[in-house]
Order: sequence, then structure tokens, then C-alpha cells
Amino acid sequence: MQLFNGTLASLLVSVSIEIIEFDSVAAATRTGPRSGEFRGMSTNRLEAFSDSVIAVAITLLVLNISVPKPDGHLARDLGEQWPVYAAYATSFITIGIIWINHHVMIGRLRRADHSILMLNLLLLLCIGVLPFGTSLLATYLRRGQGENLAAAIYSGSFLLMAIAFSALNHHILFPKAHMLRSELSSEDRRRILTRSVSGLVPYVVATALAAVSPYATLAICAALAGFYALPVASGADRSA
Amino acid sequence: MQLFNGTLASLLVSVSIEIIEFDSVAAATRTGPRSGEFRGMSTNRLEAFSDSVIAVAITLLVLNISVPKPDGHLARDLGEQWPVYAAYATSFITIGIIWINHHVMIGRLRRADHSILMLNLLLLLCIGVLPFGTSLLATYLRRGQGENLAAAIYSGSFLLMAIAFSALNHHILFPKAHMLRSELSSEDRRRILTRSVSGLVPYVVATALAAVSPYATLAICAALAGFYALPVASGADRSA
Amino acid sequence: MQLFNGTLASLLVSVSIEIIEFDSVAAATRTGPRSGEFRGMSTNRLEAFSDSVIAVAITLLVLNISVPKPDGHLARDLGEQWPVYAAYATSFITIGIIWINHHVMIGRLRRADHSILMLNLLLLLCIGVLPFGTSLLATYLRRGQGENLAAAIYSGSFLLMAIAFSALNHHILFPKAHMLRSELSSEDRRRILTRSVSGLVPYVVATALAAVSPYATLAICAALAGFYALPVASGADRSA
Amino acid sequence: MQLFNGTLASLLVSVSIEIIEFDSVAAATRTGPRSGEFRGMSTNRLEAFSDSVIAVAITLLVLNISVPKPDGHLARDLGEQWPVYAAYATSFITIGIIWINHHVMIGRLRRADHSILMLNLLLLLCIGVLPFGTSLLATYLRRGQGENLAAAIYSGSFLLMAIAFSALNHHILFPKAHMLRSELSSEDRRRILTRSVSGLVPYVVATALAAVSPYATLAICAALAGFYALPVASGADRSA
Repeated sequence: MQLFNGTLASLLVSVSIEIIEFDSVAAATRTGPRSGEFRGMSTNRLEAFSDSVIAVAITLLVLNISVPKPDGHLARDLGEQWPVYAAYATSFITIGIIWINHHVMIGRLRRADHSILMLNLLLLLCIGVLPFGTSLLATYLRRGQGENLAAAIYSGSFLLMAIAFSALNHHILFPKAHMLRSELSSEDRRRILTRSVSGLVPYVVATALAAVSPYATLAICAALAGFYALPVASGADRSA
Repeated sequence: MQLFNGTLASLLVSVSIEIIEFDSVAAATRTGPRSGEFRGMSTNRLEAFSDSVIAVAITLLVLNISVPKPDGHLARDLGEQWPVYAAYATSFITIGIIWINHHVMIGRLRRADHSILMLNLLLLLCIGVLPFGTSLLATYLRRGQGENLAAAIYSGSFLLMAIAFSALNHHILFPKAHMLRSELSSEDRRRILTRSVSGLVPYVVATALAAVSPYATLAICAALAGFYALPVASGADRSA
Repeated sequence: MQLFNGTLASLLVSVSIEIIEFDSVAAATRTGPRSGEFRGMSTNRLEAFSDSVIAVAITLLVLNISVPKPDGHLARDLGEQWPVYAAYATSFITIGIIWINHHVMIGRLRRADHSILMLNLLLLLCIGVLPFGTSLLATYLRRGQGENLAAAIYSGSFLLMAIAFSALNHHILFPKAHMLRSELSSEDRRRILTRSVSGLVPYVVATALAAVSPYATLAICAALAGFYALPVASGADRSA
Repeated sequence: MQLFNGTLASLLVSVSIEIIEFDSVAAATRTGPRSGEFRGMSTNRLEAFSDSVIAVAITLLVLNISVPKPDGHLARDLGEQWPVYAAYATSFITIGIIWINHHVMIGRLRRADHSILMLNLLLLLCIGVLPFGTSLLATYLRRGQGENLAAAIYSGSFLLMAIAFSALNHHILFPKAHMLRSELSSEDRRRILTRSVSGLVPYVVATALAAVSPYATLAICAALAGFYALPVASGADRSA
């Protein structure tokens, strides 16, 4: 228990060991067979909480579509903010697809332990930040200054989310393979993870292209979202 | 798998086939009997997520009712923004009715597959945009400039939502009839769909009338919402 | 089916009968024994949706607490906006108590039909408007102009919510008594309703007092919220 | 029932006894065996509502990250608001951990009665206020004026939340020990509470340090959040 010593910071940390110990999932587990009713968190609650966060984030996106000031020319003003609509639709569909994939990933688990909860929280943090990235791109696209950076941050935040997703996926498939609902061969697990990681590539490209053209970045992100929405993306026609 | 070739864009797309494959609902299904516990998504989760998005959208509507600046005359300022209240109530009731109808529609399903999830996401996207349409009408009504366009966009966004609803309804009732919880005769299914599509008519009229009078548009949308709220609308008194 | 005739409006309405018919809860019931799996909505879903709306409304209240502009004197600026904190806490606790009461009320039901759903939607509409009333009072209190009206609207919106609550309660207890989960004597039902209606009185008084003193209005609303939070309010100590 | 007498305020309060009586959880219990289906609230609904409030609060944090005005220099403007990102991440992780701990705490209960619901509401009120504290710190850090006070309010609001958490924890573990899902020895309960209360210490220190350096305050809060996210914090490696 005396993991750290000497400085104020380490004192605080050792005190805080007490806090988390008292009520963390693992601690609850440690209290033994007598109060043994709590062993990790059910994936039901984890999904319900994640669903709520994702639902709020996806719906907050609309706040980025601002009503033009009434002293201008409405049709022109609305037309000029087309990047806002493109960014809205792209982010909405992308978050919606992440929600589906999240459901599939968590659905493989029997229970969630402390580290899964924490990696999931990190993923939610990345999703929660997407309304900002969307707003940033929508504001700066079609302006001379800053649009490249804004586009890089936009697809960069998708990339970050995809990395957090892959990290959680890896953690579930390998270190926590014993918590899977049904056994998967290591080959199956490797294939799932390879696909997950290869999914990062388009976002790396989109982010890099932001230096050249922010429109290209938005186009790639939009094309990815649109593609995922196609039936072909589901792999249904390649099952034979 | 080599669906596209040659350009950078097609390369990206073929990479992205990998992504969606790894963790899409269909892909999970493909991993075969061993991990066969996941075959599409339960309608429970689909409903829970949709409920959350609709609940957030309906509650965000209140952000359109702005507090008048304290340097004016409060009673007059509040009175002058009556279109805000009318638009709030109309949108609130309309979204609430869509929530009920959505529940009935999804309740007919046993499971949801990739295409249903995607059409549902499109419907949610349309619902998510309603706070913007509401804000637009509330801002522009009673101003000389732009009020016709604002009203057209307002009822047009309801129309869009109704189209997305009908499209999903059609998809569930016909191509995916085998996924219905209990069998429906093709006559029953045709009747349900006919009603769904005929429900678009009032919104087409309301949108067209926006060119003449934005007040007429708002009045029709409000009357529709009010009508749906009446007991007669439930058909309960015509069951004999 | 030919309920209305002659004018455009009535045409629209008769068309809209089609819409609601196609997918309303009652219509689903009408499709008969074959698809008889859907008879009204389960109270589970009704509660889940209502919970979400209430949860979003209660959490949006924080948006009323604005950060003072950095060019002033922070301590003084924060101190001067004490009405904001008082209104926040009062509204938060009041909405929280409505949530509990809503749960008790709906918990008495087996199923929810069209009219219950609609009255519930009306109640949610009133709850959804509370962040605006809260913001209005917080902005106008301590200003010479408009504070009486703002206070009247603040407690008036609580009054409206309480009326919507009582109306739904009445509808459940009397016209829909056959849908209750367990039978209640008419005496019991009358007593519950009497209490519900007598609960409007303090808000009538608070609203009327707004003409004299907006502080008195806020004080009454705050005292009510605080009182409900006390153990004595639960009646637990009067059960003997 | 005549608890108070004489003044208008006491009259109102005695009327309001009627209100809460009619529909409070305890009152529902009092109606006796006939309608005895409702005895307190299930922890399921309590958790679902709390989850929603926490999910909305955690997602609203992103609204604090504002898009810089397009007339400046984007990279510099984004860089200068680093306190915004630090405060966002710190608050997000902290609220996420409170969500986990809340789940563990409520998971020990069989049912929730009036006092538990009210203390839980108080805890939610404190969580609901965190987006404001976060916004305050993010706005004032790096400004000469007000940053100490802003930092004190920031960690002070975490402290308040931790106190509300400990109060509810105490209430569940001691006065309501008979409502626990499985019996816990008084020693176990004391140990859990001691840890809960000792968890307040770092936030007391962080709040006190705000007078010296607001950066130190933020650093401590961030370090606590980061520490909780580490596997070591789960106590998993100290179980032997």
C-alpha cells in the first residue's frame, strides 16, 4: 500500500488509493463472498450509459447549425453555410455507426471490469468532443485563415476516436479474452483487430490531406460515413 | 472485394470495407456458429437509443425560447415572440407523436439488421435537425424578409422526417417482412404503408403554402399536431 | 370517417386521420388478433422516455448559470447573481420531485393508451419549458423592470406543470381506472386526487404574490422544494 | 398533521404536506396491502434516471470548448485555451468515475426509499453544476483577475459532490443497513465509509491551494482523475 513516499503529491495519491479502493468495482469484488453480489459491472448498464452519452453527443450536433441573423438575406446566408450541413450529416452518421460498432464490441463481453470501464470512458471522452470538432470545421471552412488546421482537427478527432475504439477492442479481445461471452479462436480475434486497426488508415489519410485541401478531408470523412451506410458495407453480400 | 480500383478514393473505400467488416452487425453474424450469439441488434437497444435521441431533441427545443434582454419592456417583448411559443408547442407535440409511432413501427420487428439500423439513423438525423427548423421559423416569422423561406424549411423538415419514417416503414413491411414479430397479410401491410405515405400530403401542402403565407404553414403544422393529440385521432371511436 | 367536410382545412384533417390511423397505438390494436402483440404501450417504455426528457431538462438548468465576463470583479459578479443559484436549486429539486411523483403515478398503470400518452406528452411539454422560466426569473430578479412578471411566469410554469400532472392523475384514476395495476377503492382514488389538486394551492398563492414581491414568490417555491425534501414530507412518521 | 401554525408560510407548508402525501413513495406505501404493489422505488429506475442525468452533464461539458472567432489566428487561439481542454478532460474522467462509484453504491441496495431518493437528488444537483465550475475555471485560468477564486470553486464543486456522495453512502450503510441487498458486517461498513470520507481530503487540499496557485489546484484534480483511471487504483493487484 505504501507505493509512493516523500512528497505532497505522493501523499495525496496514497490517500486517493483509499478512495478508489472503497468503492471501485474491483474493491467491491474484494470484499469477498459475503457481499459477493457485485463482480464487475453488467454490460447492460455500461451500454445504457454509453448509449446515453452517444445519444446526447449526436443530438448536440444540431446546436452547430446556427440561425442566420435576420438582417441579412436568408436564402444566401443559408446557402453559404453548406459546410455546416455537410459536417452535421457526416458527424451524425459517423457517430451513429460508432454506436452500432460499440454495441457489437460490448455485446461480446459477459461483464466489464475496471480497465474496460476506463478505456470505455476514454472512448466516450473522444466521442463527447466531436461536436466541438464539427463546429470548428463548420466555422472555418470557406475562410482563408485556419481552414486547414480546422479540417485536420476535425478528421483528427475521428482518428482519435477510432484509436480509442481499437484500444478498447484490443483490450477486450486479448488481455480480457476470458471475459468474452463465447470463446473466439485467436485467429478470429486477430482478424477482428486487424480490421479495426486498418480502419484507422482512411482517417490518417484524411488528416494528412488537410494540409493540402480541407475540402478533400471533409469529402473523405463524408464518403466514409456514406459508404458505411450502404448495404454493401455490411458484408451481407459477401457471406457466400 | 475488389469493388473499386484505380484512384486514391477507391483505395480508401476498399480499405474501409475492412473497417466496417470487422465490427458491423452483419460481420458479427458472419463469424459463424461459434460466436453466433450476436445476430443483428435487439430492438430493445435500438428503441432505447432512439428514445434517448428523441428525448434530447425534444428537450433542446426549449433553448429556442430566449430570455428578452433586460433593457426592454418584458411584457411586450415576451408577447412579441409568440411565434416562438407556437413553434415550440407544435414541434414538441409533433416529435412526441413521432416517438409513439416509432415505437409502434419498431415494435413490429423481432430484430434489426444493418439496413434497418441505417434507415433508422437517417430518421434520427431528420429528427435531430428539427430544433434548427423550429428556431429558424421562430426567428424569422413576423419579419418581412425571409419568413416564407423559413416557414418552407420548417414544414419541409417535418416532411423530410415523414419521408424518412415512411421509407423505414416500407423497408420493414416489405423487404424485411420475414423479420416481423408476427405475420401480417400483404393487404394489411399495403394498408399501413398507404396511410404512412398519405400522411405526407398535409406537409407537402403546408410547405407549398409557405410561398403564400408563413402563418398558414405554421397553422397547418400546429393543427396537425393538435389533431393527433385528440382522442378521435386514435381511431378508438371507429373500431366498431 | 367523413367527420369533416368542405374546406381545405377539413380536407387536411381527414387526410391526417389516415396518418394517425396507420400507426397510432389504437390503430395497432385494431389490426386484430393476428398482429395482436401490440396493445397500447408498456409503461416501461413510457417511463424510460419520460425519464430521459426529465433528465435532460433538469441538467439543462445549469446552462442558466453563466460565467461572468472576465473584465469585471469575479467575487462580486458571482455574488450578485445569487438569484441564479436559488432558482437553479429550486427548479432542480422541484423537477426531481416531479420525477418521483411521476414514477409513482405511472407505476399504478398496467398499460398506457393513446390518451394517457398524450396527456403525458403535455406534462413533459410543461416540464420542458421550466429551464426557460428559471432563466427568466434568474435574469430579471434584482432588476427594477419586469421582475414581477418574470416571477409570475416562474411560479406560473410550476403551476401549469402541477395542473398537467393533476389532469393526467385524474385521467388515470377515473376514466382509466380499469387500466390500474391493482384495484383502488373510489374513496382511495378521490383522496389521491384531492391531494393532487390541493397541491396547486401554494403555486397559485406564489404566482399571485409575484405582483407584490418577486422575492416572496421565489421564497415560496424554494420553501416548497425544500419541504418536499424533508423526511417529514414522506409521511413516514405519520403512518402509525 | 398540524405541524406548523400561525403564519402564511406555515399555512402553505401544511397545505404542501397534502401534496407530497398524495403521491410520494412513502404515501404510496401507506395506502396499504390492497395497492401494496409499490414499496419504494426499484433501484433500476433510480439508476436509469441517475445515469441519464450524469450522461447529459458529462456531454454538456463539451459546450465549454468554444470555437475561436475566425478573425484571429486559429493555431495560437486554440493553443491559448489549453486550460479548457485540461478542465474538460479532468471533469469528464472525474464524472465518469463518480458514475462507476454511484453504480457500486446503489448496487448494494434492494430498494430506494424517500430519503435515499432525496439524498441522491442532492448528489445529482452537485453533479449537474460541474459543467458550470468547469467553464468558470476554463474562462479565468491564465487571467490575472479571479483565477484563484475560479479554481477554488472548481475543486470546491468536486468537494461538494464528494461530500454529497459520502452523505448518501453513510445513509445507505448505516441508517438504511436493513435495505442492503446482502448483509455487511458493521466493520465492513465502517471501512467503506472511512475510505469514502478520506477521499474528501485531496479535494480539501486542492481547494485550499487555490489561494496559492490555481494551476496547482487543476493539477491535483487532474492527477486524481488520472490516478483513478490507472489499473493500480482498482486494487486488483493488491488482492493477494
